[in-house]
Order: sequence, then structure tokens, then C-alpha cells
Amino acid sequence: METLSEQACFDGTQSVHRHRSDACGCDMTFALYLPPAALAVPVPALWFLSGLTCTHANAMEKSGIQAHAAAAGIAVVIPDTSPRGDAVADDDGFDMGQGAGFYLDATQAPWAAHYRMRAYVADELPRLLADHPLDMERQAIAGHSMGGHGALTLAMTLPGRYRAVSAFAPICNPSNSDWGRRQLSAYLGGDGPWPEHDASLLMADRGFDGPVLIDTGTDDQFADLLRPETLAHTMAARRQRGAFRMQRGYDHSYFFIASLMADHVAFHAAALAP
Amino acid sequence: METLSEQACFDGTQSVHRHRSDACGCDMTFALYLPPAALAVPVPALWFLSGLTCTHANAMEKSGIQAHAAAAGIAVVIPDTSPRGDAVADDDGFDMGQGAGFYLDATQAPWAAHYRMRAYVADELPRLLADHPLDMERQAIAGHSMGGHGALTLAMTLPGRYRAVSAFAPICNPSNSDWGRRQLSAYLGGDGPWPEHDASLLMADRGFDGPVLIDTGTDDQFADLLRPETLAHTMAARRQRGAFRMQRGYDHSYFFIASLMADHVAFHAAALAP
Repeated sequence: METLSEQACFDGTQSVHRHRSDACGCDMTFALYLPPAALAVPVPALWFLSGLTCTHANAMEKSGIQAHAAAAGIAVVIPDTSPRGDAVADDDGFDMGQGAGFYLDATQAPWAAHYRMRAYVADELPRLLADHPLDMERQAIAGHSMGGHGALTLAMTLPGRYRAVSAFAPICNPSNSDWGRRQLSAYLGGDGPWPEHDASLLMADRGFDGPVLIDTGTDDQFADLLRPETLAHTMAARRQRGAFRMQRGYDHSYFFIASLMADHVAFHAAALAP
Repeated sequence: METLSEQACFDGTQSVHRHRSDACGCDMTFALYLPPAALAVPVPALWFLSGLTCTHANAMEKSGIQAHAAAAGIAVVIPDTSPRGDAVADDDGFDMGQGAGFYLDATQAPWAAHYRMRAYVADELPRLLADHPLDMERQAIAGHSMGGHGALTLAMTLPGRYRAVSAFAPICNPSNSDWGRRQLSAYLGGDGPWPEHDASLLMADRGFDGPVLIDTGTDDQFADLLRPETLAHTMAARRQRGAFRMQRGYDHSYFFIASLMADHVAFHAAALAP
């Protein structure tokens, strides 16, 4: 594990780390924010999964999450969005291949060799964090766009792991969207386990045993690809504890994320209280 | 206009009034809460429409709304839920006839003679309030169950009238529910203008030009009749500014309403600010 940077931030520490990943078969980079409270006690961990084209850096630099995490005494883990490197398969589109791992374990060539972001985020990276002052009995997960899809699908398929899940403008129903069908076909095959990687289908099938918070901008330029209405329907039909909000005027950007981040961290902090 | 009672309440005044209603052709009773700020300036008005079997008294006595309205400087108007009296048509069911006016103007016998709750709430009662210190340029509307249906349908069919609308466990889609089909058939006829009295159909057709807040309990014993999933879907599909929340563990009662009332008054207060 190599520490690429370590900087004071809201009286805590923002760091970036690189390591060899067994899950992905390549070097991976992630960001970790430790709040000032971590100097005294193990702190709960909030995962933030980023969207298409992002690395660990986008949320670290543009979401404003550290201010709120510092005040709440919560650590933040921001993984990359895919395996990377010359040896890793890629695609000409921005929405498939590197930067677009969709938080699943690919089963189809040429993707299966490296694209195992679910194993990385759910299994390998938590183990690698063991030497940091984190209370891994208290985890929650959030994400944006493709990362919102990741947060929701991980939360619902790992019951008991995360106490709360939130998403900014998540891809809600990839099985029925151009942000999903091509990728799920390539990574999992046309007859693969798509329902395990579709938040709306998981919500209809099993839901989440904890609170759910979804925010999407009314002016999101990708709203038709996100299909918020499908997840809103399945949440209400299931009587899922949670809030589905359409926020006036916001688009798909990090300005939207930053504007609502205080709400999301407060939401997770309530669920992560001892 | 007869004042039936007037009592100090959170440094303001809770009063109950009875008057002859031209709209309903009978005596009608309503509750009015004036916050302490009304002694100095005209205050904005929040309408609260109650549910099946209720009178003006239920929300006045059990919702806790006055504490929050006093702090926010907002008046609260609580109408009755139907015309009443021996001369007024009725039904053996608790969900039709007296106590179940559905906030519409009936067109069918025997209901058309008195059941004109829409005209009463939207036109007559606002006029009658003119001698109170209310700023009628600043109105908002809320309701519970059948009253949530009323608040949502009035808000969407009177654009510009209300700055915000919220509902506790509203009847969301009466056209497709046993809480609606029988009543709309009786009051409006089988081929009447049902879409004008169905919050989900109105949301799909036109939406609301302001914020919307919906809360429903995950343990609401009437949830299957309320059809929250239909309104959640149409709100998200329309990209309606608003929040649709399922609140863990709450049922359909005034304990649920009281628990969330602070949130709803704060929501309206933000929209009603000068």
C-alpha cells in the first residue's frame, strides 16, 4: 500500500492510496478521509461510489463531503470506478470499459479478467482498510449516477452490511435503459443475472433493511436514462422506508451533489450513531 | 358568523366558527388558528383538510399543528369534511356521505344539492375569512388521507393559489381504488370528470408549480387503498419538484400526523416566506 498524498482537511486527514488489487488484477487508487474524531476512537465509514468517467478524485475534490464528515465524525472511502491500465480491456464509449465498471463482477470476455469492482468494493478494499481507525460494524454507502446504482445494488445484495444507503441521481433501472443494457450485456451476458444489478428490480424483490434517501435534479440532463420514476414506484409499492426527492433546478453535476451533501451526510450520521 | 369558541393557544388564538354556507346549503363549522404574529401583521394561511369521518375538531385537537404554526407565524384553517345535517343526503358507509365529501362539487342526485366542498373550500370560505388578519396572497395547503387527496387536487387545479402542498398518507389514485371509485361514481357519475379529482392523474397531466411533500407510513393499514406507488411514479416521471417519503413504522393515525407535523409546517413556512 503506497500513500500518494496526505493532507490536512477540516482538522482531519484526506489521503490517497495506491495498491495492487487481487480482485481487479491491476493497481487501484482510492481516497480516504478521516475526520478529527478518528484520532481518538474508531469512526464509522461512509462509502461514496462515483459515476461514469470519474476516479477517486472527483468526489474528493468537488463534492464538499469532508466538511460534513468532519462535523459528523465519519470517515469517507472513495474508490475508483473501474480497473485501469494498458492491460485492462476498454471501450471507445465513455460509458463502458475504464471509468465505467458498474460495480459488478464481469463474467464475459474480455471484461472478466479485470472488471470485478463488486468484489473490490465489497470484499477486498474493506480488508485493506483494517489498519485504519475505522469501526467496520458501522458502515453506510452513497453514490452518484452509476455510483448511485452501485450503492443501491450493493446495499440490497449485502443485507446487514450497510446501515443506510443514499444516492444522487442514481441509474435506477439499467435493465431498461441505454445506461445499462449495453453494459450489462457486455459484462454479464445477455442472459446474465441482470436483476441482481438493477436497483428497481432489487427494490421490488427484496428492498433494503434500513433508510433510503434518493435525490435527483428536476433538470437532470440524463433523467430519461436514469429512470427515477421506476425506483420511486417500487420504493412506494414496497412501503420501503425512505425518501425519494426531486430537487428543483439541479442538473447531473457535482454542483448538485455538493448542494445536497449536507443532507446526505446528516442522513447517514443518524443511521451510523452507536 | 357565530364564534363557538375562542381560546388562547401557544400565545395565539384557537377559535371555532359556524356560519350559513351558500355553497353547501347548510350550516358549516370550521377551526381557525391565529399565531401571535397575527396581532401585529397579516399572516400567511395554511389550509389543513382532514380525512374520512373527521370534522374540524380532529386536526385542531390531535395534530399538534398550533405549536409549529405559532413559531412560524402561520395561520391554520381547518374546514369540516362535508356538509352536514338532517336535510343533507348520507350513506351507511363511513367513507361516503357526511364526513366524506372528497373535496369536490357533486353533480349527481341526491348529492349535488349540498356536496359542494370544493366550492366551499376554494371560494366561499376564503371570502369569509376576509375580516381576519390573513395575507391571502400567501396560502398553502395540506391534508390527511381523503384530505390529502383534497389538498393535492385543489393545489393542482388552482394554479397560483397555493405556494406549496403537502399530504399525510393521501388517497393518491382514487380512480383505481375502493377509496374513490364508489364515491366518484356517486358524486360525479360514472362518466364524470374523474381525472380532475385524482392526484396521480393530475400529476401526470399538469403537476404543481411549487414544492410537494408527501409522507406515508410504512405500516399504514390503508396503504393498499391509498396507492402511494402511483403518485410516487408520476411525481418522478414528471420530474416534479418534491419529496415522496415512506416513514418507518407509522400507521394512518393522528399519532403519525403529529410526529411529522413539524416537518410539514417548516416545509410550508419556507414556501410562505414573504
